[in-house]
Amino acid sequence: MECVLRPCRAEDCAEVMRMIKELAEFEKLPDQVQISDQVLREDGFANDPFYRCLVAEVPPEHRSRDVPGKAGTSTWKTCTSCLSSEIGVENRCTQLKFVVLDWNRTAIDFYQGQGAVDLTTAEGWHFFHIEGDALEQLAQGHLGH
Amino acid sequence: MECVLRPCRAEDCAEVMRMIKELAEFEKLPDQVQISDQVLREDGFANDPFYRCLVAEVPPEHRSRDVPGKAGTSTWKTCTSCLSSEIGVENRCTQLKFVVLDWNRTAIDFYQGQGAVDLTTAEGWHFFHIEGDALEQLAQGHLGH
Repeated sequence: MECVLRPCRAEDCAEVMRMIKELAEFEKLPDQVQISDQVLREDGFANDPFYRCLVAEVPPEHRSRDVPGKAGTSTWKTCTSCLSSEIGVENRCTQLKFVVLDWNRTAIDFYQGQGAVDLTTAEGWHFFHIEGDALEQLAQGHLGH
Repeated sequence: MECVLRPCRAEDCAEVMRMIKELAEFEKLPDQVQISDQVLREDGFANDPFYRCLVAEVPPEHRSRDVPGKAGTSTWKTCTSCLSSEIGVENRCTQLKFVVLDWNRTAIDFYQGQGAVDLTTAEGWHFFHIEGDALEQLAQGHLGH
């Protein structure tokens, strides 16, 4: 499959936002999406951008909006994996790291088929986060300013 | 504890490299360190740097080189956690994400005491990576150029 890669533009943020929401619905975690396309635009397209984003334009025949989570998702997944790894190799990255939900067998099989290793199972790495008041407190509490 | 935060300079890379190795030894994964202080310098201090780094200068009385993995490591950990969260909050981050080895009870207790959540246990997120030939193949294989 041929994808056209190009830098994300501010006007793509609404579509990126739609995909973020679609993925979160598929992951059964829609409440975790608290960002808006406006914040995406501010964070990515101001001075000193907060993230980098490329867009992979997928040929229409590879798109499937009728069966979200099946053909559509795996096309998207293939594209983002290739995309991330291509960017990584071009930039001398030696590893691509990511997280997958343990019930998402289709994704796990896909990634392992590409040679990915589950480091939670293999080495015991657990994925943590801290947010909200706890994050604020951690930021303010220890450095004393 | 008061830490002085300042941007990392190219000449700090040898010391950063020493800490990367010390942490990997503690994690019983020393073979995974394949980077050198020269590559750290090239990646962080050329045009379009590949990573950002701050240095937290810890007061001498909080340092402990005699008991690596105990007082020394927890001082380092406290500093890096505060550091990351402070940077995050200043930059409008809403989450700090990181990984911890499941046998590292001291670290897990420390982070959970700060309000961190183990998303591997709570939601089933597994941490994956892909590297080496598999990464090269993924980068070259699907986009067809």
